[in-house]
Amino acid sequence: MSFPVVGVVGAGQLARMMAGPAIELGITLRVLARDPAESAAQVVPLDPSTDIGSEDDLEALRRFAKHCDVITFDHEQVPTAHLRTLEAEGVLVRPGPDALEHAQDKLHMRRRLSALGVPCPRWAEVSTVDALGAFGAEVGWPVVLKTPRGGYDGKGVRLVAGAAEGEDWLARGRPLLAEERVGFTRELAALVARSPHGQAAAWPVVETVQVDGVCREVYAPAPIAEDHATSAQQVALRIADGLGVTGVLAVEMFDTPSGVLVNELAMRPHNSGHWTMEGSRTSQFEQHLRAVLDLPLGDPSMTAPYVAMANVLGGDIAEMYSGYRHCFAHDPGVRIHMYGKDVRPGRKVGHATALGDDAEDVRARARHAAAFLRGDIDG
Amino acid sequence: MSFPVVGVVGAGQLARMMAGPAIELGITLRVLARDPAESAAQVVPLDPSTDIGSEDDLEALRRFAKHCDVITFDHEQVPTAHLRTLEAEGVLVRPGPDALEHAQDKLHMRRRLSALGVPCPRWAEVSTVDALGAFGAEVGWPVVLKTPRGGYDGKGVRLVAGAAEGEDWLARGRPLLAEERVGFTRELAALVARSPHGQAAAWPVVETVQVDGVCREVYAPAPIAEDHATSAQQVALRIADGLGVTGVLAVEMFDTPSGVLVNELAMRPHNSGHWTMEGSRTSQFEQHLRAVLDLPLGDPSMTAPYVAMANVLGGDIAEMYSGYRHCFAHDPGVRIHMYGKDVRPGRKVGHATALGDDAEDVRARARHAAAFLRGDIDG
Repeated sequence: MSFPVVGVVGAGQLARMMAGPAIELGITLRVLARDPAESAAQVVPLDPSTDIGSEDDLEALRRFAKHCDVITFDHEQVPTAHLRTLEAEGVLVRPGPDALEHAQDKLHMRRRLSALGVPCPRWAEVSTVDALGAFGAEVGWPVVLKTPRGGYDGKGVRLVAGAAEGEDWLARGRPLLAEERVGFTRELAALVARSPHGQAAAWPVVETVQVDGVCREVYAPAPIAEDHATSAQQVALRIADGLGVTGVLAVEMFDTPSGVLVNELAMRPHNSGHWTMEGSRTSQFEQHLRAVLDLPLGDPSMTAPYVAMANVLGGDIAEMYSGYRHCFAHDPGVRIHMYGKDVRPGRKVGHATALGDDAEDVRARARHAAAFLRGDIDG
Repeated sequence: MSFPVVGVVGAGQLARMMAGPAIELGITLRVLARDPAESAAQVVPLDPSTDIGSEDDLEALRRFAKHCDVITFDHEQVPTAHLRTLEAEGVLVRPGPDALEHAQDKLHMRRRLSALGVPCPRWAEVSTVDALGAFGAEVGWPVVLKTPRGGYDGKGVRLVAGAAEGEDWLARGRPLLAEERVGFTRELAALVARSPHGQAAAWPVVETVQVDGVCREVYAPAPIAEDHATSAQQVALRIADGLGVTGVLAVEMFDTPSGVLVNELAMRPHNSGHWTMEGSRTSQFEQHLRAVLDLPLGDPSMTAPYVAMANVLGGDIAEMYSGYRHCFAHDPGVRIHMYGKDVRPGRKVGHATALGDDAEDVRARARHAAAFLRGDIDG
């Protein structure tokens, strides 16, 4: 048994952050990039004859897969039909298309989670203004309207105060997902990993702070009652098992006075798990590699009582390296990760993590570094 | 100020382990490799027109340095004259040749450390059998005889029971370093980092366990009295400052009842610091990058009360990946690092690290993983 080659479809920051753990494990990481300037493509040796191409192009996927022992993903936007073809041709695809579809299609996800008895917000598939109106009348306005496919970071999601407001999206002729607007106390994420042979490991449940649909900060562990945290982990493990997930599964949830409700799924390392790079004995990136290779999973326990992560969003400063001097002098313990991406307003270009014994202190430290790097604070 | 390019001369495992931290900091790491199959060259994007060449070849160094903002080292075996030429041509070389020479030439090192008042074993420069005999008569036999240049992992070092035994090496016509054989209680390493602007940071002093001149295990912190640990750190910091070191400096020492004595120096990340990858908030590889870039240094404190590292030496098993299943199932907390090197008997091909609350337990865990991977234990 020789050291395997893991191929990642997509070359964003998630693939990039798998590179370090792959190097240490002696595993070869390859990425399928649309462009050699992409985040992960900058840092991984690239064979232009096989590693440049689109995930929409079956031939490109085939060429890429030929020199990989297993295929996994930087994002879920890969045509399921292509993945089924690759599988039929003998390629190991992890997570497999049957599982992945639940992270691609929110209607599919809601149907399946409801069938599994997983607590979800009330929801309906709506194709007409009348159906949307009836759903709103039942659960109360405003209603959350989602396109089943292609949404991320707040895109493909909107609040509608009445059925007429959904008319434009409905006019596209594809069914939408309507969900009740949940009165939550906070948003949570439960991150787990599962291997093909069924082993699973759960990190502590975290609180995620979203602004305009974009994750800004993550706090580990979430400041919630133990029974809510346990039930959030159980829900995530039940989903991982029920859907046959391989690799990391992130379950975004609403915490409500009566319990947790599942919001979204991601089947790959996730922004809510970046804190694990220093905050857990096994990072989500290493764990994902171990899971897709069917290696025994690593210890997900924390390396400090409290960990906070703040995303670095594009702001006024184009060259963030200039902020390192201040950030590191100000706080020798802060951890900065940069993704090699051009700065654009609001774009996730990096993150900062702080660890320590005081929940408020680590939040303030991570927040300060992220704000300074993007140019919100004068040194 | 844009994200810099750090060029590492040499492409062994030390350069390889800088790759992960460089990726996360958004810093571009380049390596000058003799061969694209070398440890670090496997994992870093390589430009064959500039990144393949020998450190003995000034033109190769020039070509390589041209697309780097700063040059540093995987090993010290780079001609000082070449580095002085590069410096004169405006290349930033860190550590600089004046400092590096002390890690290249053990006679030079002994002279300088003695001048700095650093505690060393008694030593003499010997060019003749008579001089060796006189030194042995003074300090007692056996005497440790060293070639000033080129030794590592026990090579270029031998014990001689009398002057006649040194005749063959002396016949080469180059002066040798003779040292008293120190009756030590254990071997220590004090690892520090120093930046060009003079900031320094010290990791906890570790115990190193050597077998036949090769490091086998490292225990952090060293189980020694606090005053010995403090004085070992002070000695290392004094050397870093006195020699104007930039980057990581590893000072190998003997612990004796009457205090610590300096054995060897290395001016780069060092085997005695591999435990810092998970065992310290800032690893030696990230710290070295921060130091050579003159960024403020990171927190060197430990992430667990006890950390042990065991080197994986080449043994009976050529394909060590087969051992991952057992090692990770046996111990979800063990950390394995592999260097992508072909297995040869006794060659360092990887290491295993364990962290925890019990000193004996972490040693046993790291030792078990390393022994299993090389084939010393049946599953």
